Amino acid sequence: MILVDGKPGDRVPASDRGLLYGDGLFETIRFVGEAAPLWPRHMQRLAAGCERLRLPAPDPDLLRREAQIATQGMAQAVLRITLTRGSGTRGYAMPVAPRPTRIVAAFPMPALEAAPYRDGVRLHPCTIRLAEQPLLAGIKHLNRLEQVLARAEWDDPAIAEGLLCDARGNAISATAANLFAVIDGVPVTPAVDRCGVAGVLRAELLETLPRVEVRALPLAECLAAAELFLSSSVRGILPVRAVGDRVFAPGPVARAMQAHWRGLGFSVETA
Amino acid sequence: MILVDGKPGDRVPASDRGLLYGDGLFETIRFVGEAAPLWPRHMQRLAAGCERLRLPAPDPDLLRREAQIATQGMAQAVLRITLTRGSGTRGYAMPVAPRPTRIVAAFPMPALEAAPYRDGVRLHPCTIRLAEQPLLAGIKHLNRLEQVLARAEWDDPAIAEGLLCDARGNAISATAANLFAVIDGVPVTPAVDRCGVAGVLRAELLETLPRVEVRALPLAECLAAAELFLSSSVRGILPVRAVGDRVFAPGPVARAMQAHWRGLGFSVETA
Repeated sequence: MILVDGKPGDRVPASDRGLLYGDGLFETIRFVGEAAPLWPRHMQRLAAGCERLRLPAPDPDLLRREAQIATQGMAQAVLRITLTRGSGTRGYAMPVAPRPTRIVAAFPMPALEAAPYRDGVRLHPCTIRLAEQPLLAGIKHLNRLEQVLARAEWDDPAIAEGLLCDARGNAISATAANLFAVIDGVPVTPAVDRCGVAGVLRAELLETLPRVEVRALPLAECLAAAELFLSSSVRGILPVRAVGDRVFAPGPVARAMQAHWRGLGFSVETA
Repeated sequence: MILVDGKPGDRVPASDRGLLYGDGLFETIRFVGEAAPLWPRHMQRLAAGCERLRLPAPDPDLLRREAQIATQGMAQAVLRITLTRGSGTRGYAMPVAPRPTRIVAAFPMPALEAAPYRDGVRLHPCTIRLAEQPLLAGIKHLNRLEQVLARAEWDDPAIAEGLLCDARGNAISATAANLFAVIDGVPVTPAVDRCGVAGVLRAELLETLPRVEVRALPLAECLAAAELFLSSSVRGILPVRAVGDRVFAPGPVARAMQAHWRGLGFSVETA
């Protein structure tokens, strides 16, 4: 079910700035029945994004009520909240009194196989380099052509994700998940202050791991890691079994974070 | 009037990838009655963008027919063509058989005052730096948050545009126009192979000017130019009278290009 500004509907004005310029934000939130264990973190990131883009922040309680309506009766759902700057006069200038468009759309959670969680996933080493834009880094905005182009670099269904680097040669993330590497026994996740998205499960892990580093992660160092895994608020923790020809084995940190993920209430995946 | 996929209407599906990811392209085309003097160049850029984004290119004759319907009865119009990758399964992966969405929307041309064309416009020196993404540079895609943030840097109505640089300190463009600087008697326009948009009036000028350089243009060199002017396929040729505190006088190259613009059939602005 889809709600547009609180009303059932599946269409938006062609003049919406979300469509004209990608002028807005989104969140993709996994629901287990009525529960969304990472909801507060999604709301935090959405509020941070609104501040960055100078968008009036929506009321989280209103969003929660609309989320419950949209996901009603679904055992497992993915909820996408899209918030745009709405319609206004033509041109890049922000409307003086913006009336944001709020789209709350629920989809059935796709079935997840156990094998990727148990054995790990293969990554394609993407050739596209993420551009550095500190003013947009970290937030989940609607300008996602880089991710679209990155995802189009492979079509082998045996490859689940892509490994994305910046122009400096640092590993940053997957196309739709964050990246953790265990180096000398310490989990490391790339900084996302110049490009990349600050994932909500990444934020959860940063508060959960007893020791963790957020820093630049050169690709060579990433590929020399003892273990690699991805974090996604929809898909959970996915060990990496290969990046191109480089092979990894699922390791103890990924297993511990999978257990943490299940402990949050996402009990579907076996691992 | 707005046509969505050839039919009158002003709404698009909330699942359109143009809205979800900014996954698409646009053109903003000025019409004088039924004429659109730069139409072939707009179609060329749109086709180049489709190739870059792996979008099926629309039929220019179909677009032209829809443009005529949308602009019918308008003495002066701005036509925006938006082409998105349409709807598909969720996620960044491109649909195997995309069905692009085509939006052809006509707006009355805003009244233009004579003074900016005669005396020049003031530019705000923007602090945001354009990110370098060679795979998206030059084309007119829908990921325009940088321009939105840049345009939000000033609200003084006496300032018409912003001057945008890249992270290397090179001047690139205005927020919605291209930039020309006359240096040692030679017009120079910044290369747009790492960021920026290859404007259609810029392309027209590159073929018109007897001598012109396309290259990196360091900001200091730009500010030391004998004359500066902007090119926009909607607004034409605008001399620059100031960038922040640095004052310029409209010069002979801008005047010659204004005459060329009028010769194309855009006879509205006095200069």
